[in-house]
Amino acid sequence: MSARVTCPVLSTRITTAEAAAELIRHGDNVGMSGFTGAGYPKAVPAALAARMHAAHAHGSEFRIGLWTGASTAPDADGILAEAHGIARRMPYNSDPVLRREINSGEVEYVDAHLSHSAPQMWFGFFGHLDVAVVEVVAALPDGLLVPSTSVGNNKTWLDQADKVILEVNHWQPRELEGFHDVYYKAALPPHRLPIPLTDPTARIGDPYLRVDPRKVVAVVETRAPDRNTVFTEPDDTSQAIASHLVHFLQQEVAAGRMPADLLPLQSGVGNVANAVLAGLDASPFTNLVAFTEVIQDGMLDLLDTGTLRFASATSFGLSSEGVSRFMENIDHYKGRVLLRSEEISNHPELVRRLGVIAMNGMIEADIYGNVNSTHVMGSAVMNGIGGSGDFARNAFLNFFMSPSTAKGGAISAIVPMASHVDHTEHDVHVLVTEQGLADLRGLSPRARATRIIERCAHPEYRDALTDYVERADRARPTARHTPHLLDEALSWHQRYLDTGHM
Amino acid sequence: MSARVTCPVLSTRITTAEAAAELIRHGDNVGMSGFTGAGYPKAVPAALAARMHAAHAHGSEFRIGLWTGASTAPDADGILAEAHGIARRMPYNSDPVLRREINSGEVEYVDAHLSHSAPQMWFGFFGHLDVAVVEVVAALPDGLLVPSTSVGNNKTWLDQADKVILEVNHWQPRELEGFHDVYYKAALPPHRLPIPLTDPTARIGDPYLRVDPRKVVAVVETRAPDRNTVFTEPDDTSQAIASHLVHFLQQEVAAGRMPADLLPLQSGVGNVANAVLAGLDASPFTNLVAFTEVIQDGMLDLLDTGTLRFASATSFGLSSEGVSRFMENIDHYKGRVLLRSEEISNHPELVRRLGVIAMNGMIEADIYGNVNSTHVMGSAVMNGIGGSGDFARNAFLNFFMSPSTAKGGAISAIVPMASHVDHTEHDVHVLVTEQGLADLRGLSPRARATRIIERCAHPEYRDALTDYVERADRARPTARHTPHLLDEALSWHQRYLDTGHM
Repeated sequence: MSARVTCPVLSTRITTAEAAAELIRHGDNVGMSGFTGAGYPKAVPAALAARMHAAHAHGSEFRIGLWTGASTAPDADGILAEAHGIARRMPYNSDPVLRREINSGEVEYVDAHLSHSAPQMWFGFFGHLDVAVVEVVAALPDGLLVPSTSVGNNKTWLDQADKVILEVNHWQPRELEGFHDVYYKAALPPHRLPIPLTDPTARIGDPYLRVDPRKVVAVVETRAPDRNTVFTEPDDTSQAIASHLVHFLQQEVAAGRMPADLLPLQSGVGNVANAVLAGLDASPFTNLVAFTEVIQDGMLDLLDTGTLRFASATSFGLSSEGVSRFMENIDHYKGRVLLRSEEISNHPELVRRLGVIAMNGMIEADIYGNVNSTHVMGSAVMNGIGGSGDFARNAFLNFFMSPSTAKGGAISAIVPMASHVDHTEHDVHVLVTEQGLADLRGLSPRARATRIIERCAHPEYRDALTDYVERADRARPTARHTPHLLDEALSWHQRYLDTGHM
Repeated sequence: MSARVTCPVLSTRITTAEAAAELIRHGDNVGMSGFTGAGYPKAVPAALAARMHAAHAHGSEFRIGLWTGASTAPDADGILAEAHGIARRMPYNSDPVLRREINSGEVEYVDAHLSHSAPQMWFGFFGHLDVAVVEVVAALPDGLLVPSTSVGNNKTWLDQADKVILEVNHWQPRELEGFHDVYYKAALPPHRLPIPLTDPTARIGDPYLRVDPRKVVAVVETRAPDRNTVFTEPDDTSQAIASHLVHFLQQEVAAGRMPADLLPLQSGVGNVANAVLAGLDASPFTNLVAFTEVIQDGMLDLLDTGTLRFASATSFGLSSEGVSRFMENIDHYKGRVLLRSEEISNHPELVRRLGVIAMNGMIEADIYGNVNSTHVMGSAVMNGIGGSGDFARNAFLNFFMSPSTAKGGAISAIVPMASHVDHTEHDVHVLVTEQGLADLRGLSPRARATRIIERCAHPEYRDALTDYVERADRARPTARHTPHLLDEALSWHQRYLDTGHM
């Protein structure tokens, strides 16, 4: 009996990753654990990729539909993509190898709102789930599973799959028991009830995942780290963005539009987001709570200093330094962190009820406040929409942030027309670049254009944007609600493709 | 004492529309009742417009910010727009005169999700509300107000305005008492609780609106009809759309993805929506419920035949024939209809919990499933997003419907790239035209394109769309997730502007 698999039934299923991978067939839909490089299976994907390579070497097809929580890691998404073994992928990806295959047209990618992924799977939108491959920390004597460093869609995959493969990862601290809150009262309409969460710090479910032991066809023991997320130190640009944002929150509090301890914070993943968290840590704000997707290093800092008193999320997303710090002080974090299913962490009902302050990055925004979070030059997907739509649409207040230029100034993040729209003009409250902050609340499209160009565009592009608006405004005197020159609206992007500079 | 104003305090405030209009000043924000031409004030707007005309004749400015539930009528929005008295307008408009002023750049229009309009007003996004002008059916002895044929944002306007003007409309049937459900437990975060609605037929609030009588500066008695909505008989095109949709719902039930009595229906306003309702009436479906914005004639038909057992909405939107039918049989409808505030009728929490089937019209969709509901050729606003985003994003299943062409074939409703995006590719489940139905669930963008072109595009445009996709797909081999030719993506719209034909 393994120290981590103390369930008598499940301990009889302990086997190798290779034997487990044998149970996955060409054409299967496979639901894997994993969110922001945390809690994904470490061994079965490699064994499965080896089978795919072997099959392809013999001229047989071996490709699966791969569903996850969100992004995984090179040793999951990456290795399967290298084996050309992914036919369909949902709901989110950030792996560079897989991204290349999506953009080459090899992989069908369904880029979905994360709050939609589990429920729409129950509804039958994505087809049948054949196999679940889920990392856990331990299987208890009664068969309950201690979840790992992310919860994601694990509840749903375990529940819906015909066959379940568990990976029990001895590298993950056994002390993770108690960090999770898995809500088991979700139902299909017309049987749904209110989700009884009114405070981000509250527990509404169980600390454990459940699985029908009869479905568990393999248990694989591993000892391997999560993918490390690499953060860079905040640079001047991201610090300027953070400073504008924190200053604006202070103004909102002063204006009486927000409590002094703010409202629950959601923060996207990345360097700009981390800089914003650092900016909050350096601000007078205190006693904050987070209702977010991912706990990254910046949130750990805030928990350490006490600026943040609680974080609700669905996953960790830490650097190796962050992981060490978390592990060394794990008892300090227990009771201050809860990981929930992504259907709960991102639920519109809860985001709206709690009045979340949503802070997310973007690729570009147009002068009317439409935001592109997913596509480079209209066609190539970067990562995916993730939870940004769940949070932004339902937030009390939302921010979209980006440096005002990219590629050394060759690309403007403020463009005449977004080359792809993920967040519409109806959904975007505040844009922030290092140049400044544009508060768009209550403004008409033309008023937004003036403000965005003035406050957020890089000076190098400001005149050209103003020139565009002015000419568009004159061009069609009976169509001045959202003035556009349709033969020029996307010309900045086309020029970049043609010349390498907008 | 008036028969309809039996509240002693309020009866002392009875006055003329002209005297009431004197209490509204240049620069005020005015919150008026009204939704889909129902329940808007009938007398004060005209008196106010006369004051505006007089002021303008003397060279003084007189313009207001006008906030409503949604659309009103020629004798409210229209008459104020004709007086050039509207400076800012939110959250929805369908009046042709006002539309012209918005598109000429005279009026600042904030086109907002209807579920956002009241809460964001409480948050302070739109500024201070000076005056409310709200039509009611009666003021009871205890000061409670019997709401009229729409509830809209009336609860919020009455609560938030400094001064309140009531119009008591004797034309509206006194028997409307009991048709309303006004929820008074909404709060600002962090004090929000779950909204306790789990069944569209349930009552969670009061039949009455409340107002602080000290704020009521005028009570004006009127006797005037609501604006009549004119519906045309379903033509072949809308019948074909309805037939595809009803057939699809039958398939979904047969596949076990939906109960036999479906899930709560939301139906947009208009002739296509009415045709769909007629199609449902002619189908084997029975025992249905609606959780929607507007009760239009088609819903009355369904209630009459028993196909629909209950309708929850925020407003009526009836033809004159429909109004007569409703009035003659008002007792029959009582207990089968509830009108709620639009913050409740459209609430994401409820739409998602109940699992609504959302059916809305559109202006155009692109081949990747992005939907434009608001803008003609990218710049001129038509009406507004209304509740379509509230319902579509959170629906169990959503449909967007349109004839495949407009203007006698000169415009294709299926285009390479939408000239404005209100519902993103992440949010759109099913497109329907008279040509057929495209089920986009679980498809990647390129797979959607194939299906939309095949099933929904008009044959006259199909080859050109296929040609576009194929050339876009070849143009950038590393950007094939959502293939576009950015210098051609909007050329169909530009060609229409240049030549009158796409």
